[in-house]
Parts: sequence; structure tokens; C-alpha cells
Amino acid sequence: MNYLEKLKNAQEKNNSWLCIGLDPSPEQLPLPALRWDEPVLPFNKAIIDTTADLVCAYKPNLGFYLQWGAAGVIALERTIAYIPDHIPIIVDCKTGDIGTTQAAWAAGLYDEWNVDAVTVNPFVGQDAVLPMIGKRPDKAVYVLARTSNPGAAVFQGDVRERSGLSATVITQSQQWPVAGHLGYVVGATYPEDVTVIRELAPAASFLIPGIGAQGGSLEPAVRFGSDAVAGPVISASRSVIYASSGEDFAEAARQAAAALRTQINDLRES
Amino acid sequence: MNYLEKLKNAQEKNNSWLCIGLDPSPEQLPLPALRWDEPVLPFNKAIIDTTADLVCAYKPNLGFYLQWGAAGVIALERTIAYIPDHIPIIVDCKTGDIGTTQAAWAAGLYDEWNVDAVTVNPFVGQDAVLPMIGKRPDKAVYVLARTSNPGAAVFQGDVRERSGLSATVITQSQQWPVAGHLGYVVGATYPEDVTVIRELAPAASFLIPGIGAQGGSLEPAVRFGSDAVAGPVISASRSVIYASSGEDFAEAARQAAAALRTQINDLRES
Repeated sequence: MNYLEKLKNAQEKNNSWLCIGLDPSPEQLPLPALRWDEPVLPFNKAIIDTTADLVCAYKPNLGFYLQWGAAGVIALERTIAYIPDHIPIIVDCKTGDIGTTQAAWAAGLYDEWNVDAVTVNPFVGQDAVLPMIGKRPDKAVYVLARTSNPGAAVFQGDVRERSGLSATVITQSQQWPVAGHLGYVVGATYPEDVTVIRELAPAASFLIPGIGAQGGSLEPAVRFGSDAVAGPVISASRSVIYASSGEDFAEAARQAAAALRTQINDLRES
Repeated sequence: MNYLEKLKNAQEKNNSWLCIGLDPSPEQLPLPALRWDEPVLPFNKAIIDTTADLVCAYKPNLGFYLQWGAAGVIALERTIAYIPDHIPIIVDCKTGDIGTTQAAWAAGLYDEWNVDAVTVNPFVGQDAVLPMIGKRPDKAVYVLARTSNPGAAVFQGDVRERSGLSATVITQSQQWPVAGHLGYVVGATYPEDVTVIRELAPAASFLIPGIGAQGGSLEPAVRFGSDAVAGPVISASRSVIYASSGEDFAEAARQAAAALRTQINDLRES
């Protein structure tokens, strides 16, 4: 089963296009989680336990684990193993090195950890992507097309003009030999851009971060996010996993995730 | 002591501009290293033991460790702890996420591991760099300016024209508030570019990969690599650490490193 079919199945089973970003921060972890000596894994397990029937994917971001050094990466490895098999895992690491290094990243993420998709930074060109997919037809890569941060346009340009770095990355990468395995990261904080990027990449999967704490817009994400096989992966992190800092943090995360899922599903029907 | 002073001291002490890339690969590790159950740490230790008086820096690349999952990152953490304090450590991870995530990367790499410099991918703009330096005046960032891979020009453009993405990254980033802590990654595989980038960034430190196995040119690296404080960091990996696959691997690495150091020093004097 390829990535998009797995994603579609998870979306249908849970009636959800919501992805939860598992991004633990020491200063934001709820007090009950801090009772554990190494709080990351039990915190994540509690969130996964209460949300696994509400999401289409989980997206842990490598940087949030590396902040604890190797101990954090152990927690990430165990978190990945804990996520139910039928739910796609997207490791957000924005890796973007040259050939031999990308092959090593792929060996770790896809083969050792068996995750389904990885985010990739396209600065070095197709050398960042080809060695990752190659002999792994079931795996996918989400290439950064338009990041959700305020300063994104400085180098990425204005995608609405159909030129500049973001537009070039999208059009060029669809000519790469692995194009069928490429999706794009499209920040929801630039709502008009979602429409334009769908026009530039009619068949690609979209990973859409920036809703929730970053204040992005859901409407275009829902309207233009779907590809031919599956719906978009709409990702929220802080607004869900830190919904409460009290004893009820896992239940509060469930409620926040359920509310977002409903919000998305209402837009799908409208 | 800031990063450039530390680098300069190491360069003077060892009379060397050579940096060794510590990039372990399962298929390239010498047979004697494979006697250990977890070969990465003892392999690195053997290389460090025989080369620590010949280098100005070590540069482990995160991807090569993550290929073993968390076990590899434990070996990286211990490798970093093993490197003598006076030798700068540059973690090559090409991280390039948005604000909160970059702050987490910085907490792990600079605070938890106490490394001196990190490579950063500028695709998202200054948001990738500002949160890393901020309150860490002794630390440095090497921004990707011109990568060493064959397909680099597709998005990065031709820096010799003083326009395109690489040129824009260099000129823009020098206006950022943390400009004094920025160096640039400049691949030795594009020899003319080293000259042009020195012109665009007269005072910045250069990290120059691509000599050795990638076939880059030493001459412009030596001639145009120095900044106002220190010499360039000229990095080789495979050609040094895999100089022999036999029992003599560590001694062979020493000889390969010594030969490269001499080659660089001869060019400095010519």
C-alpha cells in the first residue's frame, strides 16, 4: 500500500483530515507530565491514547526532541513505535543535504523507524529527494513549498506571481523522477497561496501547518487541499497538545482535536 | 571567547585549516570497527585519537548518526563529549525550520551538547537563524550559501552573476541582526564561486566542504577562505576517515589528514 492510500484509509476510518504535531517543549509541558523523570514519552503516549481515533496522521518535529539531546531522540523513537500502525507518521525534520547524507537520513527514518513521510528542504535541489525515495515506493516526501513563518517571502518570493523560489520549486520538482511521491508543505498562514499552489501542483498531497497557534486559515486548506487520492493533512500542534496545563491535559487535547476535526468537517460539507 | 577566536586558537595550535567530517557509514566502516556491537563511538574515538593534533575542527553530520536511529544519536552525543575542549565542533545538520523549532534545535545543540557552530539552511529566511544565536554570543551559524552537489545551481542560481538565490542569501543575511555570528558554507566543487562569495561577504567565516572524495579544488579555498580573524574551515570526510579498511584504519586516517594539512599549508605559503 502506498503512502496516499494509507493516508486515505486513515482519513476515512477516523473521518478526519487533522494531523497532530507532537512537539514537546520543556516550558510548555503540563505539570502532571513533569512528574516523570523523562516526561516526553509518557506525555506523547497520553496524547496519542486520547486522540488516535480523531486524526489522519501524527507529525513529530525532530528539533523538539533533539533539544534534550540523545534522550529526546530515544523518546521520539519510542513515540514512533507507539503510534498505531494504521496511522501515517510524518517526521518533520526539513532535512536537505546532498546525496550520501540524504541516503543516511532515509535509512534512519524510513528503514529503521519505518515512518511514512518526511519533510524535505529543497535548497540543494533534487539531490535532497532522489536518494530518499529510490527503492522505497511506499514512502513519501513533503517538500517545503511555502513555509508558514512571517519572513517566508524574503527568499521564497510571492507565489501568487507564479514566479520566485516557491513557484520554481513546485514546478521543477514535478519533473523529478520521484514526482509521484512528492507532496508539498504549504503554510495555512498564506491562504491565497494554497489556491495558487494547487493550481501549480494539481495532483500532489498537501501538508498544511500553521492553523491553531500560528493563526492560519482553514477555509482554503479544506477547499483546495485535496489531491486525487486523499484529503490534505492539516496540522496543529500547540493549540491541541497544550490545550490544558492541568491534570486533564490529555482529555483537553482530545476535546481540542475533536473541535478542530469538526471545524474542518463542517467546512468540507459547506 | 567567541567562536572565531576559538577557531583561530585551534588553527594556530595545530597549524591547520583542516576539518575532519565524522560521518560514519555502515557499509564503509573498516572491518576492525565492526568487531564492536555498536561501532560508531569506538570508530570515532580511534579517529579522534590519531588526528586531534592535526585539525582545526571536527564536523559530525547528524544524518549519518540518525541512520541508526536513537542509538546513532547516543554515539554522536558521546563523540561530541569526547572531542578535546579546545577543538571547535561544527554539527552539520542543515537545520532550517521556523522560530520555535529553531530555538529547540539551539537548546539541544548549543546548550545541551555545547557545540560551537551549526549549519543552517536559509530557505525560510532569517527566522531560521535569529532564534539560534540570540542569547548565545559565543556561538556561530554557517548558512548554506553554495552547496557542493552537482545539482546545486537549479535553485541556487549562478553566484558568479551576483544574482540568484545564493547571492541573495549572502547579501541579505549580512543585514540580519546576528550577522557577526554568521559564516557561510561554500562548496569547494565550485572553485570560482569561492572568490565571488568572498567578495560578497568580505568578513565572514567560510566552511568549505567538497574537497577529497567530492573532488573540489583546494587552491581558491586557501586563497580566498580567510576572514579577518581566522582561516577557513576546509572539510574532508570520506577521504580521511576511510583511508584504510584494515587494522591500520586510524593510523591511515592520521596519514591522510597529515597529507591534506601539508597540501593546504603548502598552498598557504605559495
